[in-house]
Order: sequence, then C-alpha cells, then structure tokens
Amino acid sequence: MSGIPNGAIPVLNAGFVRLVDTMGNDMSVVRSARVSYGKESKGEEADQKLINYLMEHSHHTPFEHLNFTFHIRCPLFIARQWMRHRIGSFNEISLRYTNYGDEDFWHPTEWRTNNKHNGQSSGEVDWGAEGSLPFDYCLHDTYRDIDKAYKYLIDSGVAREQARAILPMGSYTEFYWSVNARSLFNFLKLRMYESAQKEMQDYAHAVYALVQDMAPWTFEAFENHMM
Amino acid sequence: MSGIPNGAIPVLNAGFVRLVDTMGNDMSVVRSARVSYGKESKGEEADQKLINYLMEHSHHTPFEHLNFTFHIRCPLFIARQWMRHRIGSFNEISLRYTNYGDEDFWHPTEWRTNNKHNGQSSGEVDWGAEGSLPFDYCLHDTYRDIDKAYKYLIDSGVAREQARAILPMGSYTEFYWSVNARSLFNFLKLRMYESAQKEMQDYAHAVYALVQDMAPWTFEAFENHMM
Amino acid sequence: MSGIPNGAIPVLNAGFVRLVDTMGNDMSVVRSARVSYGKESKGEEADQKLINYLMEHSHHTPFEHLNFTFHIRCPLFIARQWMRHRIGSFNEISLRYTNYGDEDFWHPTEWRTNNKHNGQSSGEVDWGAEGSLPFDYCLHDTYRDIDKAYKYLIDSGVAREQARAILPMGSYTEFYWSVNARSLFNFLKLRMYESAQKEMQDYAHAVYALVQDMAPWTFEAFENHMM
Amino acid sequence: MSGIPNGAIPVLNAGFVRLVDTMGNDMSVVRSARVSYGKESKGEEADQKLINYLMEHSHHTPFEHLNFTFHIRCPLFIARQWMRHRIGSFNEISLRYTNYGDEDFWHPTEWRTNNKHNGQSSGEVDWGAEGSLPFDYCLHDTYRDIDKAYKYLIDSGVAREQARAILPMGSYTEFYWSVNARSLFNFLKLRMYESAQKEMQDYAHAVYALVQDMAPWTFEAFENHMM
Repeated sequence: MSGIPNGAIPVLNAGFVRLVDTMGNDMSVVRSARVSYGKESKGEEADQKLINYLMEHSHHTPFEHLNFTFHIRCPLFIARQWMRHRIGSFNEISLRYTNYGDEDFWHPTEWRTNNKHNGQSSGEVDWGAEGSLPFDYCLHDTYRDIDKAYKYLIDSGVAREQARAILPMGSYTEFYWSVNARSLFNFLKLRMYESAQKEMQDYAHAVYALVQDMAPWTFEAFENHMM
Repeated sequence: MSGIPNGAIPVLNAGFVRLVDTMGNDMSVVRSARVSYGKESKGEEADQKLINYLMEHSHHTPFEHLNFTFHIRCPLFIARQWMRHRIGSFNEISLRYTNYGDEDFWHPTEWRTNNKHNGQSSGEVDWGAEGSLPFDYCLHDTYRDIDKAYKYLIDSGVAREQARAILPMGSYTEFYWSVNARSLFNFLKLRMYESAQKEMQDYAHAVYALVQDMAPWTFEAFENHMM
Repeated sequence: MSGIPNGAIPVLNAGFVRLVDTMGNDMSVVRSARVSYGKESKGEEADQKLINYLMEHSHHTPFEHLNFTFHIRCPLFIARQWMRHRIGSFNEISLRYTNYGDEDFWHPTEWRTNNKHNGQSSGEVDWGAEGSLPFDYCLHDTYRDIDKAYKYLIDSGVAREQARAILPMGSYTEFYWSVNARSLFNFLKLRMYESAQKEMQDYAHAVYALVQDMAPWTFEAFENHMM
Repeated sequence: MSGIPNGAIPVLNAGFVRLVDTMGNDMSVVRSARVSYGKESKGEEADQKLINYLMEHSHHTPFEHLNFTFHIRCPLFIARQWMRHRIGSFNEISLRYTNYGDEDFWHPTEWRTNNKHNGQSSGEVDWGAEGSLPFDYCLHDTYRDIDKAYKYLIDSGVAREQARAILPMGSYTEFYWSVNARSLFNFLKLRMYESAQKEMQDYAHAVYALVQDMAPWTFEAFENHMM
C-alpha cells in the first residue's frame, strides 16, 4: 500500500490525490444550461459569460454534468471528514484485509497548538528550547506499540475486524471518490477554508490543483463567486 | 426544437435519446472495487468474474463510478416519470421561453385500451370496424384548438408562465440527464419492465441500447442478475 | 378530488397545502448540534443564540433532524417545479386512475404579462378597455374542449395513460411531500423569491405559514440569514 | 460522555442506541400511498394488505414518510460503517473538544477469529488452554499507552486535531441520526445480516428493537419480504 502513483500529487508524509477520470468540461455546463444541440457554443465570450452568470446567481444544476473520479490516500481522521459529503460515491479499501507496516501512519511536519480564541483551529507556535521533538518521539513510540500489539493479535488468529480497534486514527486508508462539480464546489469551499484542519486543507488544495485546468472558466467563476 | 441530431435514437413520433458523454467503462468498476493502482487488471476472466460477483451480491457502489450524460426529447407525461428518479442531474429547457409549433406534440402509432386485470397496464385491442382513426382525429383536433388558444394568449401579451397552463401533457420537452450506472440500473429495471407505460419502455430501451457497449460486462451482469 | 380539508390553507382557485405531520422543534436542532442528552437545554437565550449561530455560519446539518409532511393540491405546472427538489419524498396520485371533472383545472384571478426586462418574470398590466375577460373565455373554452375530448377517449376504451396526453398543464394533481427543514429552507428561498412564478410563490408562502410556529427560533434565524 | 440514558438500549461495553423522535406510523404509509384525506383508512385488513403489497412489489416511496431520530454511542470503527449510509442525517460530537477517559474505549466480551472460508466474517473459536485472556491484556495495555500519550500531547499544548491521530478506532463517539423507514430497511438488511461484523449486528438489532412497535405492519412486511 505504499508509493506514489504517476501523476498523483503527494500530500502529507505518505498520502496523495490522483485524478483517475473526468466527464465533461466548460462546454458541458454551457450545453446543459442551454439544452441545445447543433450549434452549442455562442462564441467564447458569450459562453464564459453564461458560466459566470450561472455561478453568480446560484444556478448550480448545470455544473452537475461535469464529473470527476479521484483516488485518494489519507489518514483515517481525514477520510472521516471526507466521507461526510453525501453527494458523491466512495469505495474504500477494506481495513479487514490490509497488513499494516510501520510506514503506514501519519506524521506531521509541524506541530500546532489550539487556537486560544475558538478552541478549534490551531496555529503555529513557539515550542520553547526543547522544540516539538518530544512530540515526535511520543507519536513514533505510540505507533510502534500499537503496531506491535496489532501484529500480535493478528498472528494469534484474532479476527482483523476486532484487532483493528487499536489501530490509530492516523492510519492511512485509500479510496475512490466520484463527485460532480457542484458537490465538489461545496467540498472545496468548506475544506480549503482557513477554519478547516490544516491537513484537510492540504488535501482540498491538491484536489483543486488537479481539476482547475479541466474546466478553467468554471473554476475561475467558482473562485470569484463562491470562495 | 425539431429534428433528430446525429447519433441519436429516434423514439415515438418526434422524440429521441442521445448519448452526450460518458465517464468510465468496465475497468472503472473493477478498479474502484479493488482500490488499486498500478496493475489494476487481474486478467479478463478475473475482472469479469469480479463484476458478476458485485452485481450478484448487490455490492452496487463500484458501479457509481461509471457515469453517463444523455440528451432527451420526450413528451411531458414521460418527463414527469423520468424526473422522479432523484439520484441524477437534470437540466430542462424552460417552457417559458419556447415557441410551440404544431409538430411539437406526441401522436401515438397505436392506441391501446385499459388492461382489464389491473386497470393500469394497457394492451393491444381490436377497435372494431371503424378502427382507431376517430381517436387520431380527436387528438389532432384538440391539439389544434390548444395550439390556437396558446398562440392567441401569447400574441395578446399574456405571460408564457400562465399561458402554458393549457399546453397538453403530450407537448415535447428536452433535457440533459447525468446519471451513474447504479442509478441507471434502477431506472432501467423499472422502466423497461412490462408494467411500465409502453411509451416509457420505448425510451428506456433506447437508453439501454446506447450504454450497453460502453461497459459490456457490467450490463451483461445487470441483465443476468437484476432484470 | 375536490374540497379543502380541515386545517388546510387554500391556494389558487382549487388548490391547498395541508401540514400532515411533523418531527421535532427548535430543541431538536439544539440537541443534535450539541449531541448531548440529560440536560439538553442551556437556557432559552443560549439555545436561541446557538440556532442563530448555526444558520449564520451555514452549519445546516442540525436542521435536518426537523421534518415535515405536507399534503398538496396544485396544478401540474407547479408540481413539475416542486418535484425538481430532490432532497425529499413525494407520493403523487396516479393520473391513470383519476376521473377529471371540469372544476379540476386552474383558473387565474389575474392575468399577467411578460416582464420586458428579463423575459421571465411577469407583472401586473393594464389590459385596455376590454380587460382580460377574453383570456378567461379562451381558457374556459379550451379546458372544455379538452375535457370533452378526454371523456370521449376514455369512454371509447382508450387507455388512460394515452388519453392523458391531451390533459393540460393546468390540471390539478395531489401529492404527499416529506422534507427536512434544511431542504425546506432551500425550497422556500427559491420559491418565495420574487423571480419565481407568482403561483409558485403563493404555494411557498402557504407552506411557510404552516411551519413557522413549529420551530419559531429556527424560522426567525432563517429569515434573518437566508432570505 | 459516560452513562446510559433512560430508555436507551445498551450495546457493547459502553455504547447504546436511543430513540429520540419519530414521525408517522403505519397509517402514514397507507395515507401517502393512497394520497387521500378524509376517510384515510379502508379498514384494518385492507390497510395492512396494502402495506404488504407495497413491500412485496418494491414500491418503497410511501415508507419514506415514516421517520426516526436516534442517538447512538458506538466505537469509531462502527461509526465509520454507519456513516457510509448517505440517505440520512448525521450530527456527530466533535472529537476536537472531547476529553478521553480510560473507560471510553471498546472492549470485546469475546474474541473471534477470521473465518477460513471468506477471510472476512469471523466465528467463535477455541483459544486453547490459555484462553483469550492475553488479548484482553494486550488491548487494555495498548489503550493505556495511547491514553497516556494523548494526555501528554494535550497537556503540552498540542492541538487536539493533531493529537487525536493516535486515538484508536475503538474510541467511542456519539451522534444523532435521522433516517426514513425506506433507508432504514436498507441499513437493517445489510447490518443485521450474518456477514456484517458481529458488533455492527448488535447495533442494528438494537435499532430494530426500538422501531418495531412504532409501525408493526410495516416491519412485519419488511421481515417477510426483505430479510
């Protein structure tokens, strides 16, 4: 379960986002908004203007004809947030079948502290003379204990579905996600926003980087009117 | 609003179904079920067997990564049934903007009678010496009256959104429909079935004819296990 | 299919909206947002403040635990718009079984004209010396022709599912609609808005009048932040 | 976050399912299927027969007017399966705000082994002379290590959203769930089934026990035709 596939954008220490498939482009939005065949375009300027108009006035249904499939590798605490988005399709690897190695856990590149103002967001911090090294030790050490215990249970014949109870939320998982552009707007708006967990923002930005060129007018309009 | 576009399948006297766009094929199902990259196929036999297994055991989520966009022209009484399918995306032409010509109405090729057994389905019938010609006269005549009245109201300056109240359910409309294969199975199962209205069956069969070759193993499995 | 049931709000010439059932109230929103049991309320002021906060910051999921069932009678051209709202449940009377009387059609109380500015909305108008009476004659007359033709086809044994092709969009239908408050907000926002067809607005206002008292803090917050 | 609220059914070592609210009963199904007001019932026998007919012929929409809200406490590995059901509403407690005590983790009452036949389900097992006691030790010990590390990170000022990466899948969470009967049928069918993880089955059975009496004809028909 390791390695970054070709064309994927690496995220965090061992995750990635990969664009697997797409349906449509800016013209799919234009075409379905006009429900016309034959001469579908009214010229570049008129077409782009229509897309802007639809976005500005929250006429979002034409954007549902634009679709994407992604392949994602992320920690469970990220996957749990992701799968709360109900308009879309998920297929996740079954943890009941996976063998965990000790590289299959999330490690941060920087440790943050709770934001004093709202208790939720977290910001950069001066960790004092010692720095944040002790936290790395703590994390590594705990993951190692967990991994050892998990392997002991599995090797003793305990069912995976029970043994996984000790696997941490920092374990990586993988899934396929198909979503239309309208539902994607909602995801990006919530998850690229500064109040989202920093690690979630990293994934949302990777997703966004992969789709922007697929429908440039659409995502320009999205940035102008929804972000 | 007339004419059959290239590649479209004609349905009824003036309708059609056209496949506009697709995302994925049989391998999209296989890939998302296995959530693997790199060597995605395990050989044709194993791949097809997997698709069959998923269908047989009602593991339908991998089929959601297979998507289609259709362009449809059908009478309003058909569109109303179609749009009851909530898992999917619709963009319909606005009747508030359309000018109706007298070819924009549905005419049957044969008249059926109520089925005596359940009062719902309808079957072929012997209409006696006179045949069903009087029904054609009745239909044409009523459409002509309606069309004349509609034009009178519009020409007098009445708002289209009010004038359309007299337009008949047999008026043709057009829409774009995007749907994933799982939701499409449900549509096809209900609408190709013999208890569906014959005109609806005709549309469902046209839809099916357009997608079958896009994912042959998937639709073969669909026929074997869901129909 | 006529008559206005007890407790229903009459709409248009022969329609109504009736509240059949509800689940929850303001406290359902508070409770699910806090996911607490035992002492669920933190006092009226704090509870109302929480509801306002959720609405203002678009945290709409807690409002999904508040549910309503309505019984509606409306013209088909209204029902068609209504059923485009996919998050909700509809059960409609089958036109295949219904006998139409000549009171079962929509008649306007006033005729509007197309708005010159956007071609869509319509406004009040001075119809000149003759007034709008000719439009009433035209409408009545056309409905009568249609009704006569429909009855002729039915009496001759033609299947209802074919005969209904000549029934006008102004025919009344009935349906049950269950919807959660979050999806209802979206409906109300779109359909009470001035750009919606006037007849649709009338229905949306009737729906709103029936729910407001069921969750007064919720709908006050809705008005302040979403309308 | 501990204690079992009144009326809740305890599940596993520290979980529960509680029925918070309901909308409708058997008559809601009957009424919406008939879309009638006034004399809604046609007698007990006819009403129950209708419910059976709807279920047998997969006419499931009338069951969507029957709704339930549950309050659930379960381990994260169960919650993750639960929230894959997209037709329904979830509000979960935020782990970012919760303090974990050492009773907030799942402990099994019996250990199972992997089923040899399909590698997924798991069955009872003879664990030899030593029994399964060593697994209990292993689990307790690992939970204690995790809890200690989590508290160390939190006390040092590390953001909860990062520290939670070491929390195990066996941690309990709480959520509210609103769902209509049709979507509930699907949940129960999948999760009460013998191929589901035993701990998941326990929750599904608790859910079922709470709703059965709310709509006895409906759930009797469900058992006869869907299980």
